Amino acid sequence: MPLWTIYHSTDVFSDEDKAQLSEKIADIYTAFMPRFYVAIVFLPLDSKNFFIGGRPTERYVRITMEHIAREFPDQAASRRFIDKVNTVLAPFVSERGIDWEFHIDETQFDHWSVNGHYPPRPGTPDELRWREENRPSPRTHD
Amino acid sequence: MPLWTIYHSTDVFSDEDKAQLSEKIADIYTAFMPRFYVAIVFLPLDSKNFFIGGRPTERYVRITMEHIAREFPDQAASRRFIDKVNTVLAPFVSERGIDWEFHIDETQFDHWSVNGHYPPRPGTPDELRWREENRPSPRTHD
Amino acid sequence: MPLWTIYHSTDVFSDEDKAQLSEKIADIYTAFMPRFYVAIVFLPLDSKNFFIGGRPTERYVRITMEHIAREFPDQAASRRFIDKVNTVLAPFVSERGIDWEFHIDETQFDHWSVNGHYPPRPGTPDELRWREENRPSPRTHD
Repeated sequence: MPLWTIYHSTDVFSDEDKAQLSEKIADIYTAFMPRFYVAIVFLPLDSKNFFIGGRPTERYVRITMEHIAREFPDQAASRRFIDKVNTVLAPFVSERGIDWEFHIDETQFDHWSVNGHYPPRPGTPDELRWREENRPSPRTHD
Repeated sequence: MPLWTIYHSTDVFSDEDKAQLSEKIADIYTAFMPRFYVAIVFLPLDSKNFFIGGRPTERYVRITMEHIAREFPDQAASRRFIDKVNTVLAPFVSERGIDWEFHIDETQFDHWSVNGHYPPRPGTPDELRWREENRPSPRTHD
Repeated sequence: MPLWTIYHSTDVFSDEDKAQLSEKIADIYTAFMPRFYVAIVFLPLDSKNFFIGGRPTERYVRITMEHIAREFPDQAASRRFIDKVNTVLAPFVSERGIDWEFHIDETQFDHWSVNGHYPPRPGTPDELRWREENRPSPRTHD
């Protein structure tokens, strides 16, 4: 968590693009959470399997982001995040003339498990250790 | 938005089926929103990667639809939509003896971005222009 | 419903693993619902398309589960379920030294359709028949 699923026309991203973009996406979250939380899946799609407005597309990027509920306290916070994401995406989409769209789904904190552990609340000692070590480890407090 | 992810046994749909079905799905939404909002992804699955009730399947269609929250004001509205979807799907599934299932997830309007823009509310001048031009363009009002 | 999407590094699961794991996942739900409700999709990913913490991975499993809203009445119930899932997953992940993560999303009961039917409420006559026959069939009551 977060999980990004990046549906994209096969030819719009090179392997190097994906590696670079993934680093930049992880950077967005690293100020807030352990870096290893950030999972990114690229799903390349040819035009026989990808349609926008009912028509096959060869140049589109559609992203879903699954976040933990209550991460955004208000609209100002969600807008700061969304604007940041668009800044990170720009060199890979708008600056190449590629259309793109994304949305964020928020799910419940309690319904989440990492390596068999219930993840710690933000800012708690366990979470700080997970961030420092960039690894999950046994919980030491509620 | 909406995003349809259509997981299907590899052999149940031809390329022509997918193109035809995608047009019909886009038609469902065109009365309500810009046609280009409708994104459809087909993910073909062989029986080693697709299981129903714990058993491998070679003839199944499982669809997820991601919608914007508050699109359905009440159950009657959601039932009209679901019944319409089943009418559109019928020639591609039930009339071929293929089992199918779908569900709709609703996410927040504020957590959505198209080509770097916050999409306009339904019925506003910007949305009408996006519908007419079938393209996103810079926002002109709140 | 439920729908499990299992994103996994290509080499971590054999075809036999997937078949065995799918049976065990279906077993988790069979006490509560018709077995055929359980849909499982495996999506193998090479390291060019799968990133954890911004780095390509060759050994990771990331699962999303889409459930019906209100299935978990409280945290104790969700924890029992999550602990059970981790017990089932253990031989396929932790016992092989593979990291894994999952989360559950809950969607609305009304926004769900199986073979063109609105699924019956749990414990009703139609649901008991669907469970016994392990097939959907026409509804006989509200």
